[in-house]
Amino acid sequence: MAAAAEAVTEVDATNEEGEEEEQVVNPWEVSAGKGGIDYDKLVDQFGCQRLDDALVARVARLTARPPHRFLRRGLFFAHRDLNEILDLYEKGEKFYLYTGRGPSSEALHLGHLIPFMFTKYLQDAFKVPLVIQLTDDEKFLWKNLTVEETKRLARENAKDIIACGFDVERTFIFSDFNYVGGAFYENMVKVARCVTYNKVVGIFGFTPEDHIGKVSFPPVQAVPSFPSSFPHLFSGNDQLRCLIPCAIDQDPYFRMTRDVAPRIGYQKPSLIESRFFPALQGENTKMSASDPNSAIYVTDSAKEIKTKVNKYAFSGGRDSIELHRKLGANLDVDVPIKYLNFFLEDDNELEHIKKEYKEGRMLTGEVKQCLVAVLSELVARHQRARALVTEEMVDVFMAARPLPNMFG
Amino acid sequence: MAAAAEAVTEVDATNEEGEEEEQVVNPWEVSAGKGGIDYDKLVDQFGCQRLDDALVARVARLTARPPHRFLRRGLFFAHRDLNEILDLYEKGEKFYLYTGRGPSSEALHLGHLIPFMFTKYLQDAFKVPLVIQLTDDEKFLWKNLTVEETKRLARENAKDIIACGFDVERTFIFSDFNYVGGAFYENMVKVARCVTYNKVVGIFGFTPEDHIGKVSFPPVQAVPSFPSSFPHLFSGNDQLRCLIPCAIDQDPYFRMTRDVAPRIGYQKPSLIESRFFPALQGENTKMSASDPNSAIYVTDSAKEIKTKVNKYAFSGGRDSIELHRKLGANLDVDVPIKYLNFFLEDDNELEHIKKEYKEGRMLTGEVKQCLVAVLSELVARHQRARALVTEEMVDVFMAARPLPNMFG
Repeated sequence: MAAAAEAVTEVDATNEEGEEEEQVVNPWEVSAGKGGIDYDKLVDQFGCQRLDDALVARVARLTARPPHRFLRRGLFFAHRDLNEILDLYEKGEKFYLYTGRGPSSEALHLGHLIPFMFTKYLQDAFKVPLVIQLTDDEKFLWKNLTVEETKRLARENAKDIIACGFDVERTFIFSDFNYVGGAFYENMVKVARCVTYNKVVGIFGFTPEDHIGKVSFPPVQAVPSFPSSFPHLFSGNDQLRCLIPCAIDQDPYFRMTRDVAPRIGYQKPSLIESRFFPALQGENTKMSASDPNSAIYVTDSAKEIKTKVNKYAFSGGRDSIELHRKLGANLDVDVPIKYLNFFLEDDNELEHIKKEYKEGRMLTGEVKQCLVAVLSELVARHQRARALVTEEMVDVFMAARPLPNMFG
Repeated sequence: MAAAAEAVTEVDATNEEGEEEEQVVNPWEVSAGKGGIDYDKLVDQFGCQRLDDALVARVARLTARPPHRFLRRGLFFAHRDLNEILDLYEKGEKFYLYTGRGPSSEALHLGHLIPFMFTKYLQDAFKVPLVIQLTDDEKFLWKNLTVEETKRLARENAKDIIACGFDVERTFIFSDFNYVGGAFYENMVKVARCVTYNKVVGIFGFTPEDHIGKVSFPPVQAVPSFPSSFPHLFSGNDQLRCLIPCAIDQDPYFRMTRDVAPRIGYQKPSLIESRFFPALQGENTKMSASDPNSAIYVTDSAKEIKTKVNKYAFSGGRDSIELHRKLGANLDVDVPIKYLNFFLEDDNELEHIKKEYKEGRMLTGEVKQCLVAVLSELVARHQRARALVTEEMVDVFMAARPLPNMFG
C-alpha cells in the first residue's frame, strides 16, 4: 500500500475560467479544490457506502466496547460491505483483517500510525487474525531505491508497527520481496488474467510511458484479500471473509479486487475507509518526506513536536486577539483541532475545546499547547514501545507460521 | 517459454496487391510468406548473429567432440554472444544453460523435444549446470486452464524432459508457480522497472484489451538469465554467464532481457537459436494441439507414426512415378527430408537419401519408410526412458537444492 491517510492537495485547484477542477484521488495522488476534499462526492464517485451512526452503534454492540474515536468522529467514514461482515460475525462466523504499508521512509509520521491504531482496535475488539503487507516491491517500483534498501525499510517499519501493540498470536507481517511466491503468486496471476490494460488505465491512470512494473503491481496488493494467499494461516478456509481498514485513496485497488473476486471463486473483501490525515500546513498541502516540517514523525522529540506545532500548524484563529475574541476561530481550517479530533481520546474535553475556541474564549496558543501535550505523550509512548521491539520479535511476526490464537 | 520450435505460417501471405506481407515472428505467433520463413531476413530484423561454420568448428574443438547434427546442419543457425561465452570458456570460466517449456499439453511432440535434445548435448559437452523453467503461469495466462491443471501438466512434462537424459547432479527444473518468489521475484521487479509499456507493445504487440498478466509475464521469462535468481545454485557467483538454447521465436524475450541486464548490474545472456520444426503438412501450416495429425507425439505408437508419416507428411515427390524418375523430388518443401535433417544422425546416409531422392532414383514411399524407422526408434526409446521416471525423481529434479556436480 502507498502511504495512506495523508492529505495531498493541489494548491490551486481553480482554473482560469474559475471553474472548480475535478478532485483526483488515487493511491499515489490526492488533489482537491480549495475547499479541501469533498468526501461526499468521493463516496458517490467511488461507489462505496457511508458509515453512519447506526453502523457505528452496531459495531459497539457486537464488540461490547465503546467505538474507537476514529469511528465516533467519522474519521473512518466510509465502507464496503461492512454490514455483511457484521451479519456473519453475529452468526458466529469469523473474518480476518488486512492492512499494509508502503515502506518508503525510515520513520513513520502520525498519519502512518492511524490505520495501525485503528486496526489494532479492530483486532482487539473482534478477536480476529490480521495480515500486514509491507509493499517493499511497490516502493522499489515507484521510488528510486534499491531492493536492499526497501527491504531494510520494511523491517524498520515493521518495528514501528509491532510497537503499536499487535498480538503476536494473531498477526502475520510480511514483506512482498520475502513472501511473494507459491499460493500468493498463483492468486496474483489469477487476478492479472481478469484485468485488462484498459481497465487499470481507467482505475489508476497509467500512461504508455510508465514501466510495466506499475501495471503488474495492482494484483500484488489485491491478493492478501483472499485467504488462499496464506496457506499457513487459512488452509481449508478459502471462503473466510476479509475486512480491510484503509484510507479512502486505497479504494481503487479494492474496487478492482472486488470486481475480480467472484470471477475466480473468491469472496469480495469488505472495507472500512478513513478520511485523510492533514499536513501541519493544512489540508491544501502535502505531507512530504522531503519537508520534515510538514508532519510529526514518531521519532520527533518533545521539543521538536512543540516547535513544529507552534510554528507550522495552520491556525483557524484570527489575526488579532481582539478579533479572535469577537469572531472566534474557524474550526474548518484549523489543523490543531483536526489533529485533536484524531488523537484526543476524551470526547467531552474535545467538545469543550472546540466550543471555547470557536467562541473566541480559547486562543490558538492554548489549543496548540493542548495538542503538544497529547502528541508528546503519544509519541513518547510509541518510542518506549519501539525500543522494546527486538530483531527476534520481528523475525517471529514475519515468519510464515500458523497463528496459535487466531480467533481467540 | 511458449512452444518453441514449431513452424507456424499463415496460409496466404500475399495480399491483393500481390505484395508479400511481412513475416511476423514472436513467441505466440509465427507467420510467413508462401516461401516459408526467411531466416536471413529474421536475423537482420532481430539483430542477432549468424552461426557460421567457423563457430561450429570452434565448439567442436573446445568440447573435443563432433558437433551435434543440429549444429552441423544449420538447424541451430543464429546466436547472440556465443563467441563471448566460448572466449571465457577457453580461459577456464564456466557458464550455465537456461531453457524452458510452456506446459500446455499432456504429451510432447517431436518439435518440443528439439531444444531439450540440443540442451542435453550442450550440458554433456561443456559440463555445465542447467536450469529448466516450466512456465505454468504463462499457460494459465494465455490458455483457458486452471492453475492446478497447468501445474499438473508442468509435472507431466518434467517427466518427458527428464527422460531426455539430463544429469540430476547438474540440472534444476522449476515451475514458476512453485518457485517464483524471494530472489527470483526481486529480479522480476527489477526488470519490470526498466521496461515501459510502450516497449513491450513494440516487442510483443500487446493491445490495450489484453489482460495485464500478459504485460507482467516477460520479466518472468527474463530473470532465469540471471544467476542471482537461483541463490541455492549460484550464490556469490552473480556474474556467471548464461547461454540459452531456443528457437528463434523466443528472441524477443531475450532482446528485452539483454537490453535490461547492464542497467541492473547483470551480464547479458548469450543465445543459440534454432530454425522451426515444421508441421507434418509443411512449413505453411501450424503444428496444433487441436489437430493430432499435424505432429508426431512422444506418446504415439509405431503404428500411429507410420500412418501419420505416410498419410500426412507433405511430399516433395512428383505426381507420377514417371515424372518423379524424370524430375526428381523438390527437397525444399519435402517434410520427410526436413524431419530426417533433424533426426537422422548419419550425415552420409542423409546425403545419400537426399541425392537419390532429388535425382528421382528414390521414391517418396521409400524416404517415408526410412523416416518411420528413425522416428519409431526415437519415440520408442523416449517411451522406455519416460517409463523409468518416478515421482521421486521428479521431486529431486524440482527441489531447490545445491547441485553436487555442477561443473564436474
